[in-house]
Amino acid sequence: MTASTESSAPGSTARTRVRRLPELAAQDRATLHAVLDDALVATVAVVDDGQPYALPVACARDGERLLLHGSTGSRLFRLLAAGVPACVTVTLVDGLVLARSAFESSMNYRSVMVLGSSAVVDEADKQAAMRRLTEHLMPGRWSQLRPPTRKELAATRVVAMPLAECSVKVSSGDPQDPDEDLDAPVWAGVVPVEHSWGEPLASADLRFDAEPPAYVRGWRHGRT
Amino acid sequence: MTASTESSAPGSTARTRVRRLPELAAQDRATLHAVLDDALVATVAVVDDGQPYALPVACARDGERLLLHGSTGSRLFRLLAAGVPACVTVTLVDGLVLARSAFESSMNYRSVMVLGSSAVVDEADKQAAMRRLTEHLMPGRWSQLRPPTRKELAATRVVAMPLAECSVKVSSGDPQDPDEDLDAPVWAGVVPVEHSWGEPLASADLRFDAEPPAYVRGWRHGRT
Repeated sequence: MTASTESSAPGSTARTRVRRLPELAAQDRATLHAVLDDALVATVAVVDDGQPYALPVACARDGERLLLHGSTGSRLFRLLAAGVPACVTVTLVDGLVLARSAFESSMNYRSVMVLGSSAVVDEADKQAAMRRLTEHLMPGRWSQLRPPTRKELAATRVVAMPLAECSVKVSSGDPQDPDEDLDAPVWAGVVPVEHSWGEPLASADLRFDAEPPAYVRGWRHGRT
Repeated sequence: MTASTESSAPGSTARTRVRRLPELAAQDRATLHAVLDDALVATVAVVDDGQPYALPVACARDGERLLLHGSTGSRLFRLLAAGVPACVTVTLVDGLVLARSAFESSMNYRSVMVLGSSAVVDEADKQAAMRRLTEHLMPGRWSQLRPPTRKELAATRVVAMPLAECSVKVSSGDPQDPDEDLDAPVWAGVVPVEHSWGEPLASADLRFDAEPPAYVRGWRHGRT
């Protein structure tokens, strides 16, 4: 295992160029897509009256845009719909890196930062976007559910953030201790953080005997 | 299982009052502390030239403040050290909530948002703060490591965000479907997201045979 050494970023601009540890910025769009596809939640930051606010929001990549949805009554989504400058950040923690010093100790992670303004997904496309969100978060689920009602569609805001101006950072592999620390009598390595799906818990108000759906068993591990 | 129904927040102000789903805002400081204590990473948002930037940063609660550390060369940490308005958000995803409709489908999660300005931890306290960070992230590790060098201390910026103006949201339990959906022939419930520690992986440059340290085995699961 070695730390990844990619050095640029897809859609890189002066604002998104990775300033610190540029050797960790991943080059390829495939990495960008893969990180987003492992994410259930993004943290979305906007500015209101000079104060930044960062809130967790469910997300789903749809080609070269990232879909976000929330209530039409949400302040965050009102701001996003108005096209204010936004930053959408996804972070997946993969492990703790135990080096021979506190200074070199770190984490392995994958992160994406997308800058820009989101656009409202219009009514004609809203249901398809909701399907994409549901199928990203809960693959196999959409076809089991009744379609959204007109009232539900009206209460939901869906916005799309273009994957235009973004950076990707991937840190993986062993600690990078300087030579003079290598004889320290201390274990060094990585303790992985693992994400998995637990046993499905039936709702107390389930009105019939049913096994948890088979498609849940097929869900990919490692998403968070 | 039922969704939590706390309705206020510690250190709540007009800016942090939970506007959406206020029944999910947890009252007590114990919840605030518990969420932060399960977090390895926070997302820190600042504004630069009107653009919000949100970046993942390792964090550790130290009493009624949240410690963050980074490189003195980091733009984010220069801004934090200058005391600009910041927002620190922690999100722990606990499960997917499979309701009978896409509209009611959601996630169980715990999140904290802290607003304010961080203060630089001065030189006299910096090493103690680094110890707190290391011991939060890797309990048992600090005493195994050589002390930081003067050069390492000089290259590290530690800032503290007071836990003064903050909100906590906790969503847990079953889906909350309306009565008219309860007869839908679809399974409903929660699929937990579980976080655990994987088998420690020794560094390739380890110069002696050693078992992974015993303290790693005692690390609490469920942190991410």
